[in-house]
Amino acid sequence: MNPEDFQKLNRVIHEKGRMAIMSLLAATPSVSFTDMRDTLGMTDGNLTTHIKHLQKAGYVGVTKSFRGKRPLTTLSLTTEGRAAFADYIDALEQIVKSARS
Amino acid sequence: MNPEDFQKLNRVIHEKGRMAIMSLLAATPSVSFTDMRDTLGMTDGNLTTHIKHLQKAGYVGVTKSFRGKRPLTTLSLTTEGRAAFADYIDALEQIVKSARS
Repeated sequence: MNPEDFQKLNRVIHEKGRMAIMSLLAATPSVSFTDMRDTLGMTDGNLTTHIKHLQKAGYVGVTKSFRGKRPLTTLSLTTEGRAAFADYIDALEQIVKSARS
Repeated sequence: MNPEDFQKLNRVIHEKGRMAIMSLLAATPSVSFTDMRDTLGMTDGNLTTHIKHLQKAGYVGVTKSFRGKRPLTTLSLTTEGRAAFADYIDALEQIVKSARS
């Protein structure tokens, strides 16, 4: 077990809800706010708070537009967010490997 | 990406510091408080707080004894702690696999 593996874990991404959001966004070019909320079973307020945190870190981009007359909020990973998530998954993998050995 | 993988993550273990403590204990029958503190680069206060949390969850046992005239505090995983950590690592592995696919 290597203590550095844990120090490497990105605090912004490590929170369970944000981990789920980042994982969902990593698997797709973009997702609407409502689709994400329903997929992850979060409240509007909870998802909004997490997204603000991820936006502030520069990991998630938020686009506001319209679908017909209805406002549409679309979420996607930034290049920086995609890289940070890849690093985070690498660190997790190291921890799992070390626990298995 | 499966939202249930994230819901499965044990909140007590998921915190970075406690994850490191559980990983260290999983690799050994027992560790002294001071060795753990030095290995993980934590303060006494920080480690004490985490250990109390893990003790309350029933995951870590604390034994107080003496080495010569010096008090010795020894930490070890309980059977329940070992099982919870194994489940946690299984959940992490699912998340890593899903991110890689």
